[in-house]
Amino acid sequence: MIIVIQCRDQVGLVAAISGALARLQLNIISLREHVDQTENRFFIRIEVDGETATAPLRHELGYLLPGDAIISINPQPEKKIVVLVTKEYHCLSDILIRHHFGTLGASVRHVIGNYPVLEDICRRFEIPFTLISHENLEKEDFERQIMDVLLRLQPDYIVLAKFMRILSPAFVKAFPARIINIHHSFLPAFVGANPYRQAFERGVKLIGATAHFVTDQLDEGPIIAQQTIPVDHSYTAAAMMKAGKEIETAVLASALRLVFDDRVLVYKNKTIIFQ
Amino acid sequence: MIIVIQCRDQVGLVAAISGALARLQLNIISLREHVDQTENRFFIRIEVDGETATAPLRHELGYLLPGDAIISINPQPEKKIVVLVTKEYHCLSDILIRHHFGTLGASVRHVIGNYPVLEDICRRFEIPFTLISHENLEKEDFERQIMDVLLRLQPDYIVLAKFMRILSPAFVKAFPARIINIHHSFLPAFVGANPYRQAFERGVKLIGATAHFVTDQLDEGPIIAQQTIPVDHSYTAAAMMKAGKEIETAVLASALRLVFDDRVLVYKNKTIIFQ
Amino acid sequence: MIIVIQCRDQVGLVAAISGALARLQLNIISLREHVDQTENRFFIRIEVDGETATAPLRHELGYLLPGDAIISINPQPEKKIVVLVTKEYHCLSDILIRHHFGTLGASVRHVIGNYPVLEDICRRFEIPFTLISHENLEKEDFERQIMDVLLRLQPDYIVLAKFMRILSPAFVKAFPARIINIHHSFLPAFVGANPYRQAFERGVKLIGATAHFVTDQLDEGPIIAQQTIPVDHSYTAAAMMKAGKEIETAVLASALRLVFDDRVLVYKNKTIIFQ
Amino acid sequence: MIIVIQCRDQVGLVAAISGALARLQLNIISLREHVDQTENRFFIRIEVDGETATAPLRHELGYLLPGDAIISINPQPEKKIVVLVTKEYHCLSDILIRHHFGTLGASVRHVIGNYPVLEDICRRFEIPFTLISHENLEKEDFERQIMDVLLRLQPDYIVLAKFMRILSPAFVKAFPARIINIHHSFLPAFVGANPYRQAFERGVKLIGATAHFVTDQLDEGPIIAQQTIPVDHSYTAAAMMKAGKEIETAVLASALRLVFDDRVLVYKNKTIIFQ
Repeated sequence: MIIVIQCRDQVGLVAAISGALARLQLNIISLREHVDQTENRFFIRIEVDGETATAPLRHELGYLLPGDAIISINPQPEKKIVVLVTKEYHCLSDILIRHHFGTLGASVRHVIGNYPVLEDICRRFEIPFTLISHENLEKEDFERQIMDVLLRLQPDYIVLAKFMRILSPAFVKAFPARIINIHHSFLPAFVGANPYRQAFERGVKLIGATAHFVTDQLDEGPIIAQQTIPVDHSYTAAAMMKAGKEIETAVLASALRLVFDDRVLVYKNKTIIFQ
Repeated sequence: MIIVIQCRDQVGLVAAISGALARLQLNIISLREHVDQTENRFFIRIEVDGETATAPLRHELGYLLPGDAIISINPQPEKKIVVLVTKEYHCLSDILIRHHFGTLGASVRHVIGNYPVLEDICRRFEIPFTLISHENLEKEDFERQIMDVLLRLQPDYIVLAKFMRILSPAFVKAFPARIINIHHSFLPAFVGANPYRQAFERGVKLIGATAHFVTDQLDEGPIIAQQTIPVDHSYTAAAMMKAGKEIETAVLASALRLVFDDRVLVYKNKTIIFQ
Repeated sequence: MIIVIQCRDQVGLVAAISGALARLQLNIISLREHVDQTENRFFIRIEVDGETATAPLRHELGYLLPGDAIISINPQPEKKIVVLVTKEYHCLSDILIRHHFGTLGASVRHVIGNYPVLEDICRRFEIPFTLISHENLEKEDFERQIMDVLLRLQPDYIVLAKFMRILSPAFVKAFPARIINIHHSFLPAFVGANPYRQAFERGVKLIGATAHFVTDQLDEGPIIAQQTIPVDHSYTAAAMMKAGKEIETAVLASALRLVFDDRVLVYKNKTIIFQ
Repeated sequence: MIIVIQCRDQVGLVAAISGALARLQLNIISLREHVDQTENRFFIRIEVDGETATAPLRHELGYLLPGDAIISINPQPEKKIVVLVTKEYHCLSDILIRHHFGTLGASVRHVIGNYPVLEDICRRFEIPFTLISHENLEKEDFERQIMDVLLRLQPDYIVLAKFMRILSPAFVKAFPARIINIHHSFLPAFVGANPYRQAFERGVKLIGATAHFVTDQLDEGPIIAQQTIPVDHSYTAAAMMKAGKEIETAVLASALRLVFDDRVLVYKNKTIIFQ
């Protein structure tokens, strides 16, 4: 059983929480705690051996902890996700393969593409695909069609697996800390379009990728995972893009694993990650 | 204040420890806990904001915890170390520089060399150096001379910064989990002498270094830190050795930082490291 | 056009080769040359802009170069491969996905499994799968059945994508430098079976994977690519294995890319890789 | 002997150069060539076994190659450098140690500091130190005093080892591709002041460092080397700065090694690096 809590910090929080668990004879296997002293904010993730009824534990913790506590007990073991894509196959394929073999840690309920290119790969894994083209549509109408699917499926998370449209602030606000994007650069370097072209022009010696929660500020949301790989003068912008796809796939996979495993807490514009 | 404990695992340990701290109004800033379920062993590291008298806290924790508990409260902030070297300068120099500028986290009390080569660099930083040559000496006598210095200085840790002599089991047993060695390979690959020659012959594409506690089994003690760096066909054995010195320096520095910061617990032949 | 040559070293080889190319008005875009002075062996890889008839160029180079020269001009752009698997899906799936989307740089002609587990994923990508069980078969008969498929398909390379049977020396010798294996450890550490169990027992802080050509010495063939990733005390052997699959997939993909791109030369038990 | 050339690209350049070497019976040990097809620019680095008189070879190459060729034959084996510092010790100490033990590949002629803090460490290694304070001085006068030292010593390269003053365009232009700076971020992320504070505010999961040639555009010059290291939520801005010093030291050392080994060519705002 996994318990994840964040609240205002004060003396005695660990004692209160671990005391409650001890009274239930629950043994703590792994505990990670962090206090952000600047923000006076307490974060904890606990894995216990064994299970208990969640309602009484939640009730007791609610009683013991500050009123602003966000308590997550034994989150549903398998998150439901919807994936949004455009044309690039690498991130989506990686998700589909892991899902197919039962190692994704989440259930892929649907894929939405604004081009039909990736419908075939979804079909091969019996994942429903809906084409919602942005062409000839107002952004508002485009997003309303996506929203209709999401409202029907009620996913825990929405994964932008190289979805190349910018979502409106209104849309994003409907899913706080629930939309995960893979950006094809080491943020905050090369915000926006065509980061590999920018990286090539600058002559960098590393390229990277960043997985982050989406907020209404483009490419500015809380960062979950980042990695870089070396490049050199022999890389054209196209070669950087090709090499970058490898790191994009790896970084998104890593971020999803952390999120689906209830290891990522969000506070303001940062993540606390208990690996 | 930092509290580090290991003992037999049972339900309620975190509650007991954090309860004792809460009663003292000590706020936990950072807590890392790990249970090795195979070994039924509990490990914890706690940073609290503020200080308290250690004797009463130790007494209370001793009362609350299993009889085999190893409790370390507020370890002396600066460890005392003695460094053993042979001829290579890179690890020693790095230690001397950090010590000189106050960022090592330990006090270098003495350097012992079995060659005079590194006396000069010690002198430049006013660190006492004792030459104890192994030549024309029985191993027992050689080690007795080293032991004399160590017994006089009572260091917390002995750092083998490219000390190329093998210490006898008897010597090693006098300092359990207190002798730190840097081995110039990615253990367990290339145990023993001339690992770069071995790596060259094998045609590996990575070389590495390993910092570990020394036990009476050569190169078999608990591993603290390891890193690797890429090499290719253009590296001769000499070039591998040269590149390897960079990684040796980095890995030893990293291991020492962890140890001096009370982040490394040892149990049987493994380390638990709370970074 | 790509030209790859190895031969006995002597003065004037680059001049001879580049002179021949210049006479054909072929512009050299990228040239990598390496001399192994210990072995007195010359290796070169040249990319030229434009094409020419290969037969006359091969004839001229054969005339200019030492008699032992191995000359490879404009190797067929797409290698043919057969993949051997057992039960684990990760490496095979990665190969199938890249092949399906045309980015593998090789054509997957067939998959042979000694269990039926992975037949389904091959079927989804319309890749023929043959089940050749090793059960109730002499090794010789088992290998003969595999050989029958290979002789029929004449692949350029045979990829062991987590094929957990050891091939006999006789089999291996039939495909010198043409069988590529992914070994689930950082060789030469943890040769043989169950490397993650070995790594767990040893308490290493990094785990790795190695892609290598197969020779008649188990896990001793020329290494193509290696990578490591950090682990810590919280990893069980099972968790190491899970994390290891990620690195196995990445290392094999990287090695295949190098081989299919004609960047890997083999001499004795080492590789020269012009990246 | 090392030969480094860049010029306008055309067919036959490698043949011309290697032909000239072959006529002198010079054997090529290692050759790296790159053509930037967008810029139509040819770059080459050749290591030959043995020596020859440079004047005739230079004359012959000048005759064979396009008129714009920049030919560097057997550059002086040990570069002369002057190091500029402010208060931080880590990069300078690393340079002094390597210099002291003869592994820097360059001769440190002088250190100039705008604070007296690092005079002591220079004195310990008998390296002359000049204090040139920027306080109460016009920038022009401050730079003139530095220039006086440089004009007297005629260094090949000027190393800014955490020199925290911005040099004027006029100063920089006097040393094209000869001033090497270490910037404490992964450029182009966090240009300018206080990159660790910026990184902390952004909540990045990697921090980095960049060594680059200085041009009249702040932090915009050709990049030589970059590395990143992971950080997490437990890092304050101060902790990032501390961890960053390790990577700054490593990246600057790596860049200097490449430059001093004649492996770095500069064209427009990029480097071509033949490792």
